[in-house]
Amino acid sequence: MPGVLYERAAVLGCGLIGSSLLRAMQEKGVARELVAVDPSPAVRQRVEALGIADLVLADNAEAAAKSDLVILAAPSMSIVEVAPAVAAAMRPGATLTDVGSVKGAVAEAFALAPAHLHAVPGHPIAGTERSGPDAGFAELFDGRWTILCPLDRPEDDAYALAVAKLSTFWRTLGSTVELMDARHHDLVLAVTSHLPHLIAYNIVGTAADLEQVARAEVMKFSAGGFRDFTRIAASDPVMWRDVFLLNKEAVLEVLGRFTEDLQALSRAIRWGEGDKLQELFSRTREIRRGIVAAGQESPEPNFGRDRGKH
Amino acid sequence: MPGVLYERAAVLGCGLIGSSLLRAMQEKGVARELVAVDPSPAVRQRVEALGIADLVLADNAEAAAKSDLVILAAPSMSIVEVAPAVAAAMRPGATLTDVGSVKGAVAEAFALAPAHLHAVPGHPIAGTERSGPDAGFAELFDGRWTILCPLDRPEDDAYALAVAKLSTFWRTLGSTVELMDARHHDLVLAVTSHLPHLIAYNIVGTAADLEQVARAEVMKFSAGGFRDFTRIAASDPVMWRDVFLLNKEAVLEVLGRFTEDLQALSRAIRWGEGDKLQELFSRTREIRRGIVAAGQESPEPNFGRDRGKH
Repeated sequence: MPGVLYERAAVLGCGLIGSSLLRAMQEKGVARELVAVDPSPAVRQRVEALGIADLVLADNAEAAAKSDLVILAAPSMSIVEVAPAVAAAMRPGATLTDVGSVKGAVAEAFALAPAHLHAVPGHPIAGTERSGPDAGFAELFDGRWTILCPLDRPEDDAYALAVAKLSTFWRTLGSTVELMDARHHDLVLAVTSHLPHLIAYNIVGTAADLEQVARAEVMKFSAGGFRDFTRIAASDPVMWRDVFLLNKEAVLEVLGRFTEDLQALSRAIRWGEGDKLQELFSRTREIRRGIVAAGQESPEPNFGRDRGKH
Repeated sequence: MPGVLYERAAVLGCGLIGSSLLRAMQEKGVARELVAVDPSPAVRQRVEALGIADLVLADNAEAAAKSDLVILAAPSMSIVEVAPAVAAAMRPGATLTDVGSVKGAVAEAFALAPAHLHAVPGHPIAGTERSGPDAGFAELFDGRWTILCPLDRPEDDAYALAVAKLSTFWRTLGSTVELMDARHHDLVLAVTSHLPHLIAYNIVGTAADLEQVARAEVMKFSAGGFRDFTRIAASDPVMWRDVFLLNKEAVLEVLGRFTEDLQALSRAIRWGEGDKLQELFSRTREIRRGIVAAGQESPEPNFGRDRGKH
């Protein structure tokens, strides 16, 4: 236990990630005082009822002014939009970070922050398909990776120290921390997160719109594979809209590759090239083994969703 | 408990589905004697060691000749290939069925069976990404749907009775039974199972082949969504090769719709049409709610894979 790392930490945005952060920070005692901010009165009321913050506010600048750690935990577009005003309100020496899924756009916004504070874009690779303050839980970041994308601040020892402290913060919450260039982050996540979400949203939309197959049939017989896709296609619509608007280039690039590969696969089916199909289908098994071995997936069949059955 | 339904039931193929069937049949006592057949000596040895059959044989015809229920539980292409010889060996009045994922091709093969036996194509919508006799479990079919696609045998009361008895058999194993035309089955499953598998295999292949992102990065940061796809992309390669070879038309048809929708989505991203994206992403949430309400999915976040964490 590293004990208290920050005097007063503010979480701006109390959805799944923000409220999980508050819970985890409370449990680990990493900040002496926790400030929660949300523009929605209903959300603020829930946060107060849950008792996961010492102070619940409506105003970003008010919270920013009194905190030595400020975490922006809103959809990516909002993060980019509120960053200037939040940064302007912050104290010298304080740390500004975020949890958004896109890092290039945040790094650009953070680069404009006053030099007297330490702005470090961040992204915990964790979540569920649920949204809102009641969906959060303290263990969300446990065993997951958190990527930090420090700005280019050579020779700035105070900045390096702030990054190191923020890394300790995430480790205390159970994460493994990796430092990465923001542009590279956006390409990696385009593959491991953004494209999968796009594909999932798309296939669920396609299935819902087919005339020849009734929606009731799609739902009834979804255990053949389709239901897996509906989980991530149930994720927060605004958050994901922002991801695709802000990480357009990388998403379109990997989508281009995906489409090219899919066309080759389609052609192999049309021409009955069984060997080609079997070769791909055998190769993909290894990747899952690697993910399970890396501790990033349940080793149980069917994600363990049938646990208790056998 | 309906008690004993068949005197001697033979399961031809002892992989995930076949061995689950043997376990379930043993547990429910639906057949007085269980015969297991597999061409692989290693698999036969495992089945004997597991004690899930009364008799373990290498020869399909030998098992077929002594059974009043014969279940073909091999990949779809093998089912179609062995069906004629198995049917020829069977006794008058016996029932022949299968568990393959494609039903049109099986219905065609079954239609050629001698009129003195009752051939009923079938498909339990159940499975995991595991393969082999050790992957099976008795509860696999519990709470799942099983689709039967009876042949066109009007005025054949004995056939109708055989279909009714086979329905009772599946219900005893915990399934809900639905009767469906084989061609419609293949279209429905193309949407709810075959296309999802194709897309999953494809995205895992795309990710593995990208030069700009290392495989280790893909695995490490897979909790952002990608890992969900690797589960079904770890399914049996031969089984899935056969599905795409035998259900080509329906798969290419729904794949065409999927690709069309994906191009529209790609265009919306390129032109920054946030409203269009948000509209689709909101609509797809409902489908998951329907699937959970239909009892075909875990209501827990992340499929319950984090159970125990919170």
